[in-house]
Amino acid sequence: MTESRTVPEHLRDAVAQARVQVAALHAELPRWGLVVWTAGNVSQRVVADPDGGPGPEDLLVIKPSGVTYDTLTPESMVVCDLDGTLVEGDRSPSSDTAAHAYVYRHMPEVGGVVHTHSTYATAWAARREPIPCVLTMMADEFGGEVPIGPFALIGDDSIGRGIVETLRSSRSPAVLMANHGPFTIGADAKAAVKAAVMVEEVARTIHIALQLGTPHPIEQDKIDSLYDRYQNVYGR
Amino acid sequence: MTESRTVPEHLRDAVAQARVQVAALHAELPRWGLVVWTAGNVSQRVVADPDGGPGPEDLLVIKPSGVTYDTLTPESMVVCDLDGTLVEGDRSPSSDTAAHAYVYRHMPEVGGVVHTHSTYATAWAARREPIPCVLTMMADEFGGEVPIGPFALIGDDSIGRGIVETLRSSRSPAVLMANHGPFTIGADAKAAVKAAVMVEEVARTIHIALQLGTPHPIEQDKIDSLYDRYQNVYGR
Amino acid sequence: MTESRTVPEHLRDAVAQARVQVAALHAELPRWGLVVWTAGNVSQRVVADPDGGPGPEDLLVIKPSGVTYDTLTPESMVVCDLDGTLVEGDRSPSSDTAAHAYVYRHMPEVGGVVHTHSTYATAWAARREPIPCVLTMMADEFGGEVPIGPFALIGDDSIGRGIVETLRSSRSPAVLMANHGPFTIGADAKAAVKAAVMVEEVARTIHIALQLGTPHPIEQDKIDSLYDRYQNVYGR
Amino acid sequence: MTESRTVPEHLRDAVAQARVQVAALHAELPRWGLVVWTAGNVSQRVVADPDGGPGPEDLLVIKPSGVTYDTLTPESMVVCDLDGTLVEGDRSPSSDTAAHAYVYRHMPEVGGVVHTHSTYATAWAARREPIPCVLTMMADEFGGEVPIGPFALIGDDSIGRGIVETLRSSRSPAVLMANHGPFTIGADAKAAVKAAVMVEEVARTIHIALQLGTPHPIEQDKIDSLYDRYQNVYGR
Repeated sequence: MTESRTVPEHLRDAVAQARVQVAALHAELPRWGLVVWTAGNVSQRVVADPDGGPGPEDLLVIKPSGVTYDTLTPESMVVCDLDGTLVEGDRSPSSDTAAHAYVYRHMPEVGGVVHTHSTYATAWAARREPIPCVLTMMADEFGGEVPIGPFALIGDDSIGRGIVETLRSSRSPAVLMANHGPFTIGADAKAAVKAAVMVEEVARTIHIALQLGTPHPIEQDKIDSLYDRYQNVYGR
Repeated sequence: MTESRTVPEHLRDAVAQARVQVAALHAELPRWGLVVWTAGNVSQRVVADPDGGPGPEDLLVIKPSGVTYDTLTPESMVVCDLDGTLVEGDRSPSSDTAAHAYVYRHMPEVGGVVHTHSTYATAWAARREPIPCVLTMMADEFGGEVPIGPFALIGDDSIGRGIVETLRSSRSPAVLMANHGPFTIGADAKAAVKAAVMVEEVARTIHIALQLGTPHPIEQDKIDSLYDRYQNVYGR
Repeated sequence: MTESRTVPEHLRDAVAQARVQVAALHAELPRWGLVVWTAGNVSQRVVADPDGGPGPEDLLVIKPSGVTYDTLTPESMVVCDLDGTLVEGDRSPSSDTAAHAYVYRHMPEVGGVVHTHSTYATAWAARREPIPCVLTMMADEFGGEVPIGPFALIGDDSIGRGIVETLRSSRSPAVLMANHGPFTIGADAKAAVKAAVMVEEVARTIHIALQLGTPHPIEQDKIDSLYDRYQNVYGR
Repeated sequence: MTESRTVPEHLRDAVAQARVQVAALHAELPRWGLVVWTAGNVSQRVVADPDGGPGPEDLLVIKPSGVTYDTLTPESMVVCDLDGTLVEGDRSPSSDTAAHAYVYRHMPEVGGVVHTHSTYATAWAARREPIPCVLTMMADEFGGEVPIGPFALIGDDSIGRGIVETLRSSRSPAVLMANHGPFTIGADAKAAVKAAVMVEEVARTIHIALQLGTPHPIEQDKIDSLYDRYQNVYGR
């Protein structure tokens, strides 16, 4: 799609800024207990043509593969094109880069993607059960249940395609890929990190509620009302 | 109720002090694992007429909306009147300010209010089940069960009214608003934060006790005795 | 029993040392997640007559009442006699001091006492179920089950008596007081803190094991063998 | 097997380097919540004949017995031969050294060993149930279920033998010793620590998944495919 192998001159500042942001946002993943060891990754889109908006020539900034969280710096982040090919960086990109890139290619409204194996969200994913919307904070953030995506093996576009197909038919910014874990999206990387934090929070709270009985459902019109109000205040 | 739009001269010191206290107390919420991201808020009443006691001209100091916990400073706190209208501050007040303000308007004995979505308390709230008083520390602090408040949507006075109506008929300084989460009150913000910490602690411990059987009940006269002793030693 | 109201000259160094140790050991309670807010307390015996051994003239050093963990210093610790009466210190002793003092009066081999409301241990206490010995580390440390003590109200010697009567007929250094929480003992305060850490660890691990089935029992002769070996290596 | 009682001259640098690595890797155990107090230990093999490869004259570097995690330094680590006899160090080696040494004697491909009592893995061990492979990250790292080893008492070679016999018939780098806890192996100590972190993560996540139903199985050929891909990228 793109043949660039270096960061174009006019994007140097935007890439440098994204490196700083993406490195800082990775620190939020262990901070909120979403990852162990080197698992998990955050990426952000860098729009190649700010006037024309998101497009196939965009770049993405992501974590390198197999690096521990306490050694992540802006300089160690890597830059790829939207085919997932390395454009700039000393190390290999995260092995999940292809899934991130697929999302950016097919969802122009998405500016950030996060993947974790956070414990409770992954437990729902192992059972392939969507998380029901029984909390007001979940209505605010997700506008309904958190859906399950298909079982997909790493190595081609199946994970990316599963994410996109599932999220297109949902208001949720999070999908639980079957037997795998959550992927979240947002207008930028920060919003996607927030969705990763929140999906684990609702996965845990509703799991615990279900351990001793049945949560009261919230009627759909109340969910809609909460979601509309919250999204109008904070945007997404 | 009040038409003030600036902090009156004679309250400048009290407001400055409350800003320091409320900012510091917010740090207790992530410290004890009660909040994620920007959720949760602490407020404190500033009495307008120290001789006459609490009244409708009082102010409240609260967290601004959507600010992360590691960037909270005394200066970033906002001041509102008891209608929830902004009096001083660079940012919007927390979207829960109306509920805090309602409590201060209707419960003059309350000097501090805290709201979180702490995990175990919120799980009880999702099932709309009060937490039974089966621990001596719970008898000390709550004097009985932690009650459930009504399901109420944000946007008008229904949350505030639900808090006040529920707490008026209970010794508990905490109420679990249905499908939403806990609100706590106290003589000042610190006491309300303590109640927020303790309600999560008893919600978690009693949840865990119930997972493998049935806790032994404590007789009502023993609960009364523990509560009376504790409140006489520490006040509330 | 003792009429001293000041620390005798010949014990000044020992008391100063115990203040340092007890203050430092309190930091272990939040570090291992055993306490919230100001709950929990550690004490250590100061032997009045080092030649004659433990006796009724001994002192104890303990945490003052209602002080938060991040403000504890050697200077803020308080000194009491074995009736629980304040001998030295600016604040009231912990409200659990009478229970600590009772243990020191009746168990001369005990040099340290710890009390917490640690979550999982307290959950077993709420059900009044002893923790069964199904882990090798539990055989090492406890030599069998962790027993349940009676339900006792604060205010007289009933808590202390319940601790002593239960521990005298057990190898366990920990007792779960009914609907209340664990008390642990040791040759010194550090050993009692270790027992407090370990009782929560086995309470949690065995709770989790029981959630999905039944742990395999360990035969009594194997428990005895593990306990004897461990206690001969490390003492108690 | 070996009669050396001092570190041979030609291994001084390698031992010094291993001391630094093993001390640093111990900090990962409390960091990821795998240990309390002084429990748990990490060791690394030092090959005596780098040209000839692993052999009976190798040494191992391990944690001393009963030392707290915040006081571990390279200097405080101890060096033993592969019979578990102390070669260099001021303190006794960990009481689990015999089990580590047995593994190095019988599995030349192993360069690092870790032992913990991490909570969820130990809970599976208490029930003597292998952890089923129902997560893609588990297929990546373990290539199948995590097996249960025999019940074995400390004091002779039974723990070591149980580890080796179980791991030889498995792709998993982790074994759950019955009623005891996990032992993990790796090409070096860092890889064994990673396996210790990951076995707790999958033990916890799959425990939680099972609490509310049944995880979907992953077909064996998909497990094989994930395992082969992951091991070819990262090695083991």
